[in-house]
Amino acid sequence: MTKPVQRRRILRVEVGVGATPRHDSLAAEEPLEIRVGGTSFAVTMRTPGHDFDLVAGFLVSEGVVTAPADLRSMIYCAPDLEENTYNVIDVGVSGAGGVVAAGRERNVYTSSSCGVCGLASIDAVATTSAFDVADDAVRVDAKVLGALPDRLRDQQAVFERTGGLHAAGLFSSAGEALAVREDVGRHNAVDKVVGQALREDRLPLTGSVLQVSGRASFELVQKAAMAGVPVLAAVSAPSSLAVDLADRLGVTLVGFSRGTTFNVYTHPERVVVD
Amino acid sequence: MTKPVQRRRILRVEVGVGATPRHDSLAAEEPLEIRVGGTSFAVTMRTPGHDFDLVAGFLVSEGVVTAPADLRSMIYCAPDLEENTYNVIDVGVSGAGGVVAAGRERNVYTSSSCGVCGLASIDAVATTSAFDVADDAVRVDAKVLGALPDRLRDQQAVFERTGGLHAAGLFSSAGEALAVREDVGRHNAVDKVVGQALREDRLPLTGSVLQVSGRASFELVQKAAMAGVPVLAAVSAPSSLAVDLADRLGVTLVGFSRGTTFNVYTHPERVVVD
Repeated sequence: MTKPVQRRRILRVEVGVGATPRHDSLAAEEPLEIRVGGTSFAVTMRTPGHDFDLVAGFLVSEGVVTAPADLRSMIYCAPDLEENTYNVIDVGVSGAGGVVAAGRERNVYTSSSCGVCGLASIDAVATTSAFDVADDAVRVDAKVLGALPDRLRDQQAVFERTGGLHAAGLFSSAGEALAVREDVGRHNAVDKVVGQALREDRLPLTGSVLQVSGRASFELVQKAAMAGVPVLAAVSAPSSLAVDLADRLGVTLVGFSRGTTFNVYTHPERVVVD
Repeated sequence: MTKPVQRRRILRVEVGVGATPRHDSLAAEEPLEIRVGGTSFAVTMRTPGHDFDLVAGFLVSEGVVTAPADLRSMIYCAPDLEENTYNVIDVGVSGAGGVVAAGRERNVYTSSSCGVCGLASIDAVATTSAFDVADDAVRVDAKVLGALPDRLRDQQAVFERTGGLHAAGLFSSAGEALAVREDVGRHNAVDKVVGQALREDRLPLTGSVLQVSGRASFELVQKAAMAGVPVLAAVSAPSSLAVDLADRLGVTLVGFSRGTTFNVYTHPERVVVD
């Protein structure tokens, strides 16, 4: 299996000074093909590692699985009997999910920063939520929320070396870190966190906060809602569609979270400000 | 048509101080469906504006068009005779491109940060390059390269207001700005720049530098190569696959470009260091 950090020879340039050859650590990016019952369902560009969690979380987002029992099996497989690249995973799905997957057999292709891919309209998303986050009565203190980006950064192992990875962290409403994952794709990092929770039978993620690096687009709100996460916080800006979807689905959306200040875009009743 | 900047009511929180309601400007994110000859070809989550350029550039990346004459027509259309949302564009394609598009009619779905989507393997990309960038003899001074991120930022109109947009800028090898575009998706910003160039019959983009905000993933290298851009520079880190693809296609890949320092990951012969 490809390691999450790759070494390459580079040229380091200092303008007006000179250039020095050196080795540099890079975040690995590789395609992962997800098959359901032997049929290709999706390809995502991801950083290898926690692949089973990634697959499980992706299938939660797609509405294919909602409980651990829905995942009958997951194996790395070798397409066309060639060497196993650990870039193809075949999933056996139980019950209704298999029907959903078959109905969706329309090639869900995703890149390193692509999330939904296929659920391209706000209506399609709004009608497929497995869990209702709107009635989650959790309350989160503003001090706790503001501190999450630093706590997320503290737990990022690969970023320190590559500067090239996004992160997603699941926290309790008191700010306790429950899981942190990294990936070249922010949506993959979220899938890895959600997939781990599914496999440990912790869905829906009632009472929790999902903190992500960077920005919040439409697809991250969708993933939060599909996993039952009531509060989604981003270090940077949300898009208009992210805000509209969060408003509609009952997700509290926080942006520009920078320690002592942040913006609450939707459902501010869950944020406790002194 | 939706405006590229949307206003929403938010709550601004200062930890330990309090919360203030205010209005905030957000980068708009909307789905754009691209149809070729009336048949759905792709859906991308994008910031509205320069949509025809976006469509043209996307079709360059997909190998469907390589010259302005290949684009017979582009119109906003109203699906199912409802109100025109300006979120569906139908393209008439001439010649070989129509055949390519028909062969690819396998739902290319992309999100706000998704590029290739469908060309998921490095081999698929490497075999579809329309232009050969490997023999581009352009030379770029290190001082010019280092200054491009600031020049890009200076030209970003919407970012100042929303903090939420990626940008792509096409520059001459002397550092002259040829085109700058913004979008919630970095790959869309690149498509807009490339599409404008196609429509003005300036492909291949020999002798030019493409500077992007943020990081360089696999798909951005692919888009640069498909448009004949010999030098791609990113403000932040490239992924391992971006480096490997750039190496193979002959693209000079620059990362962590921060004014006075940057890293050259591939084909450093085009960078002139004193």
